[in-house]
Formats: sequence, structure tokens, C-alpha cells
Amino acid sequence: MFTLFHHPFCPQSRFVRLALGEYGLDLRLVEERTWERREAFLALNPAGTTPVLIAEGRPAIPGAGIIAEYLDETHGAGMGERRLMPTSIGERIEVRRLMAWFNDKFFEEASNPLVTERIYKRFMDEQDGGGAPAADVIRAAKANVRYHLAYIGWLAKTRNYLAGDRLTYADLAAAAHLSAIDYLGDVPWVEDDAAKAWYARVKSRPSFRPLLSEWLAGVPASRTYVDLDF
Amino acid sequence: MFTLFHHPFCPQSRFVRLALGEYGLDLRLVEERTWERREAFLALNPAGTTPVLIAEGRPAIPGAGIIAEYLDETHGAGMGERRLMPTSIGERIEVRRLMAWFNDKFFEEASNPLVTERIYKRFMDEQDGGGAPAADVIRAAKANVRYHLAYIGWLAKTRNYLAGDRLTYADLAAAAHLSAIDYLGDVPWVEDDAAKAWYARVKSRPSFRPLLSEWLAGVPASRTYVDLDF
Repeated sequence: MFTLFHHPFCPQSRFVRLALGEYGLDLRLVEERTWERREAFLALNPAGTTPVLIAEGRPAIPGAGIIAEYLDETHGAGMGERRLMPTSIGERIEVRRLMAWFNDKFFEEASNPLVTERIYKRFMDEQDGGGAPAADVIRAAKANVRYHLAYIGWLAKTRNYLAGDRLTYADLAAAAHLSAIDYLGDVPWVEDDAAKAWYARVKSRPSFRPLLSEWLAGVPASRTYVDLDF
Repeated sequence: MFTLFHHPFCPQSRFVRLALGEYGLDLRLVEERTWERREAFLALNPAGTTPVLIAEGRPAIPGAGIIAEYLDETHGAGMGERRLMPTSIGERIEVRRLMAWFNDKFFEEASNPLVTERIYKRFMDEQDGGGAPAADVIRAAKANVRYHLAYIGWLAKTRNYLAGDRLTYADLAAAAHLSAIDYLGDVPWVEDDAAKAWYARVKSRPSFRPLLSEWLAGVPASRTYVDLDF
């Protein structure tokens, strides 16, 4: 049994949930509001960020990339064809490159500003940065979503899945970040058919179901969010 | 023979140089000015960032963390006691946590703003963001250096090296970022004796020599930079 300190809209936490779901590993979720800087949470992860995975007998495992490496080292070999990290060195480089692309770059340029402005700020006190969403931040982030979507579309046209023939961490990372902002209606799917078709395939996997069924009170999901044939 | 696309003041590139140096691996350096967004470089790494390591017969390997994993997978097992990533799962989590702490968090909060303002901006055209250093950015980054230095000091007091008994990637990451800003005189060593003593040990390693001998025309190194007994 794992415990994940997460936020339902933290895109990197969504990535970890998808990975554990693909591996059929049981998970208890603890919602953490990182902006409250809870002391017991900072003791687990001094960086104060989600996700943090707790596995029995291990130090707390902070961050999407580190959790992915941990899961590969402890469970990857036993997963056979379902392993989310390929075994060849060259393919591992590409999967790690794309994991970092989405968990770091897409996060910084698009998913984190959108989720922060539209969701987190609702729950923050004024002194923590709460308040009305900043229109200029949202505008810049939405422009970035468009170029990322085109990159995903290009990858999806070139390959079966984003990093190659099979589903890997790269697909889960991209889909996790997209899912958080798709809830908010911030993904212009009409702009890229290839990206949309790839996302529809990933979204229809059983590991995705728990994400799609969680709604936030007062913030209804976009028309495309739950619909598998959006 | 490896080729590294780097900048002499890119702290993450310095980390990679230290790691290759510790493993005794030969390296050819190519200086990349990422703000020029050279097309051939973007083809190697669409993210447009240094470091990028080229190893024969492999796809280009972008980013300090991905390069560290690559080196561990291809050379780690043969390095015995000198391996920079421990073999036990728990210690690997801690080394990866601290690698990310320095290569991501320290980079974002301290080393990258200082190097950008004080070095890169000298070489940038006005349209790329060149010009005079922004005093408020430097002030904020220097304040962040102080809390990071205290954290390093705390780790160094608790353990022999930052992640445990032996030298690991964690030490090289911390030392690489500190070295870039120590050149600029931006590390208040007097504030933390334990951090200073730990850094003096790491800095005296042969892998550090190439970094210490490179000076930038027009920007003299600080008094503490080359002196091993600073």
C-alpha cells in the first residue's frame, strides 16, 4: 500500500496516480494544500511540493521524476510488456527527456500557471497569493499550451505512442498535465487532430478513470473532460 | 569520447563536467549560447537548454538529471567505491532528491538568476533580454543563497557528505551551482563554517581543477574562487 500526498489538480500528482494505476498498485490519497506550508509535510519534503509518495520502509519519495525512477527500480522488471520505462538505453533517454519535458517545462509554462490561477488561488488566503486569477498569466499560459499541443501532435504522428511503439511514462506525463487543464477547458483540441486522437486513446485506459470521476465543487469540468469521444 | 554542449557558467553543465571528471571520462566541450537559439542545437534538444551530452551511438542526452541517470546506467556499476549513485534504494531516493534540489530548485531560485543577470546578459542582444543586471533580481537571488547555504551546512554537519557517507551526485550538484556563483562573489561563506568546510573538500578534488582554471575576460573571479583555503 502506498500513500500519496497530492492535490487533485497538481498535474505531477496526476502523473504518479496514472503510473500506479497502470501497475495495479494500491494507493491511499492525502490532499495537501502546499501553500499552507504544513510543518509535518515540510518534514517529509523540505521543498514543500507535491507529489510525495510514501512507500513502507523507504524515505519519503518527492517529485514525479524521482517517483518514476523508484517505481521502475522496484516494480519495472516485473511488469514485462506493461513496463512504463523501456529497457534499452536509447529509449530510456527519450522517455526521460519527454517526462522532463512535460513534468518540468509544460508544468512551468502552461499547466502550473493555469491551475494556480484558476484553482489554487480560490483556496489561498490573500497573504498566500490568493485572489482573482491574473488574466495576463492565463493568456500567456494558453498561448504556450498551443505550441505544446502541436509538439504532441507531431510526436503522435511520427510514432505510435509519444516516445515510441509502446505506452511509457512519457504518455502518462503528457496526459496528466493535459487532463488537469482540460478540466478547465484550456486545451484547444480542434487545433490538432493527431494530438486529440492520441489523448483519446490514453484517456480511455482504466488508469484514467479515477481522475475523470473527481469533480471540484463550484468548478464544473469542461465539455470535453469526461467524454471519451470529445 | 563524449561531447558536451555547455556554457562555462551554466551550473548544470558544471555538474556534468564534474561527474565525467570523477569517472575519468574524456570530454570535448562546445560552448553554446542558448539565448541565440541556434537551429542545429534545437534539433539536438528542442528545449533549447544546456547541458546536452553526446555519446556515440546514442540519441542526444539533455539535462543534468537525465545525463546523471545515463552515466549511472552505463558506467556506474564499473566504478565500485567511486560510483556517484549509491546502490541501495533508500540512498538512491536521497541522492536524487538532493540532485533535483540543487539542479532544479537552487538553479531556479539562486544560481540561474545570478548567472543570467551578471554573465549571460553581457552577451545577449537587447532583443534577447540583454542589458544591465536587474538589481532586484540579484537581491532576491542572494537572499535565497543564504538559506540554501544554511541547508547545505545542516546536511554537512549531519553527514560526512551531503547525502550520506560517501561522495555522490548530490555533492557534485551542490558544488557545481555554488562554484558558478562563487566566481561572482555571491556566496557568503562566513555565514556557515560547516558548508564552507564541506565545499573546501569537494573543491580540492582533481575533477574541480578544469572549472577553477577558466576565467572569463572582463569578469575577474572573486577572491575565494581559486583559493583552496578560502
